[in-house]
Amino acid sequence: MIHKSAIISSKAKIGVNVKIGHYSVIYDNVVIGDNTIIEGFCEIGYPTNLADGNPLIIGNNSYIRSHSIFYEGSSFKEKLVTGHRVTVREKTYAGLNLQIGTLSDIQGDCQIGDYVRTHSNVHIGKHSKIGNYIWIFPYVVLTNDPHPPSETMLGVAVKDFAVIATMAVILPGITVNEHALVGAHSLVNKDVPYGMVVAGNPAKILCETSKIKLKDNPQLSAYPWPRHFRRGYPDSVTEEWRSMFGEKII
Amino acid sequence: MIHKSAIISSKAKIGVNVKIGHYSVIYDNVVIGDNTIIEGFCEIGYPTNLADGNPLIIGNNSYIRSHSIFYEGSSFKEKLVTGHRVTVREKTYAGLNLQIGTLSDIQGDCQIGDYVRTHSNVHIGKHSKIGNYIWIFPYVVLTNDPHPPSETMLGVAVKDFAVIATMAVILPGITVNEHALVGAHSLVNKDVPYGMVVAGNPAKILCETSKIKLKDNPQLSAYPWPRHFRRGYPDSVTEEWRSMFGEKII
Amino acid sequence: MIHKSAIISSKAKIGVNVKIGHYSVIYDNVVIGDNTIIEGFCEIGYPTNLADGNPLIIGNNSYIRSHSIFYEGSSFKEKLVTGHRVTVREKTYAGLNLQIGTLSDIQGDCQIGDYVRTHSNVHIGKHSKIGNYIWIFPYVVLTNDPHPPSETMLGVAVKDFAVIATMAVILPGITVNEHALVGAHSLVNKDVPYGMVVAGNPAKILCETSKIKLKDNPQLSAYPWPRHFRRGYPDSVTEEWRSMFGEKII
Repeated sequence: MIHKSAIISSKAKIGVNVKIGHYSVIYDNVVIGDNTIIEGFCEIGYPTNLADGNPLIIGNNSYIRSHSIFYEGSSFKEKLVTGHRVTVREKTYAGLNLQIGTLSDIQGDCQIGDYVRTHSNVHIGKHSKIGNYIWIFPYVVLTNDPHPPSETMLGVAVKDFAVIATMAVILPGITVNEHALVGAHSLVNKDVPYGMVVAGNPAKILCETSKIKLKDNPQLSAYPWPRHFRRGYPDSVTEEWRSMFGEKII
Repeated sequence: MIHKSAIISSKAKIGVNVKIGHYSVIYDNVVIGDNTIIEGFCEIGYPTNLADGNPLIIGNNSYIRSHSIFYEGSSFKEKLVTGHRVTVREKTYAGLNLQIGTLSDIQGDCQIGDYVRTHSNVHIGKHSKIGNYIWIFPYVVLTNDPHPPSETMLGVAVKDFAVIATMAVILPGITVNEHALVGAHSLVNKDVPYGMVVAGNPAKILCETSKIKLKDNPQLSAYPWPRHFRRGYPDSVTEEWRSMFGEKII
Repeated sequence: MIHKSAIISSKAKIGVNVKIGHYSVIYDNVVIGDNTIIEGFCEIGYPTNLADGNPLIIGNNSYIRSHSIFYEGSSFKEKLVTGHRVTVREKTYAGLNLQIGTLSDIQGDCQIGDYVRTHSNVHIGKHSKIGNYIWIFPYVVLTNDPHPPSETMLGVAVKDFAVIATMAVILPGITVNEHALVGAHSLVNKDVPYGMVVAGNPAKILCETSKIKLKDNPQLSAYPWPRHFRRGYPDSVTEEWRSMFGEKII
């Protein structure tokens, strides 16, 4: 299961039934869970002094696609899934089944909850705090420095079920609250209230998310999105959502 | 012509005079045309169930630069050219001489005509339909989900000779019509009429493209662009353009 | 110090105490300074006719992180530092201690001064002229074609101590003057005056940079930033800044 061209440190702790692809490099300070797949050209546990000696921990049943780089000192629970060319730095702690899109860049010192999905080319700045069941779409940037360059770091907070659409920039210290929706190409410079849609440069509050209707069924609201979108989540989650949001519609 | 470190499936169909670079991987379900160059660190024909068993077909005389990834199940006519670190997923069907810039990401299920050029870091969402002779500049995103996340996919359509400038986002289901120009950093939420310039967030119609004059010759319109820009197109195309747009100016 | 899997041209000129990582490729026309580290999966001196035969020169004590690509024909003084997956094309001439963030793309024919820093995913178009002590943040694009596509190239100029925040686009031929600050997600279509803040789409002048106060100490201006931020610069620079800006505050 380990390609003969892979370079594996004898110090790395590798679970059972792990697959490691062509030319990938596994460094010393790494714990890889059982049944995990690491594709080709990856660097896993890239050394950094900033990790303070803490290992990279990849949970069981994870899937890291090719050309990805994970620094030592971060930790991911079960079923981490990545696209290609992902970069994740040190001291990021993520929950269950984080999905990271191709080319996304998680800068380190981040807290990420369960079942978070980022699409391609998302940039998550240091000190971001991301809740559960969140969606972040391509080219979104979560910033952190209110007057760059400086030593001040004010991470962005994104709360449960929030959605940030393509190419939005969230300014330092901003909170995107539960069930909020940030429109595409927005610059968000104020906290986004619970369940509201904001959009524009700078972003303004447009309406409640419930005002957005499904294109295929205009009598139904598109938000909260777990009412109609449950693909890719395990039964334990969709069961919880059934009690929170009712039966899946459509 | 095949580097000794390349890993080539015996099932791959590889044309004559093909060059494959250091450490590249050619998977099973691949047809590579004659005289094609694939540089180093590439993955060609990356397997996916979503390809329904269809091969990746790369036309003759193509040039794929290093660190690029092509999934199985897509097809490219002659003279595909890519920058570095390109990602192209399954079920994308492209015409002649597609040029894809460094770091660009074509998400799959796309239709692309002849002589389309994308610059660096362009993101083409699933179900995009792109005509002929189109230019797409860095960090442009073609989206597809009108209320993310959802199961609804409304691809963007871009028609012949249209130009989309840097960091524009085109919202789901929008059509950018023939000879239109989308200004840099625009958010396009309405169809763009034939031959018009739109710009802003949200984008508004500014003027006809013919109002934009060449910096080096302010008496001449910069659009339609094939009047003055024909570099990199074959004689068969420029001959056709001569009948459509007259002799090349300047 | 040279990994056994690295592929090194016998024509490359490699200094003393140089480290070259796993699977990296060093091409012919390359001069690598002493004590430089080149990590894995890199391509250094990637051949191009556009270099007119000029070598790639990497100064002493440089550090190029993994998966990076440098074309022949560019030149970097001492202490170049890069993130991962950087791409730098031909005929770019940079001064001391350039730092290039992960995924950034320098397109070639650029002039870059001393102690310039780009964060991740910055796109520097051809013919950009960048001064000294400049900061450019994620997803910024410096453009160059006033009516794309065309043969006209009007590079952007960025002057000493200027700062360009996340996802700003600078239009062709624009000058961002000394000590100016371009706000996040701005579209800059006019020259930015000395020491002023601009923001918006299109960007407008907001105020003098001195009006922006430090979050941690609101009685002090955050700009000029060298008054409070000197991390990562050598003594020779901070000594000069002491005479220009006084003692470091906080």
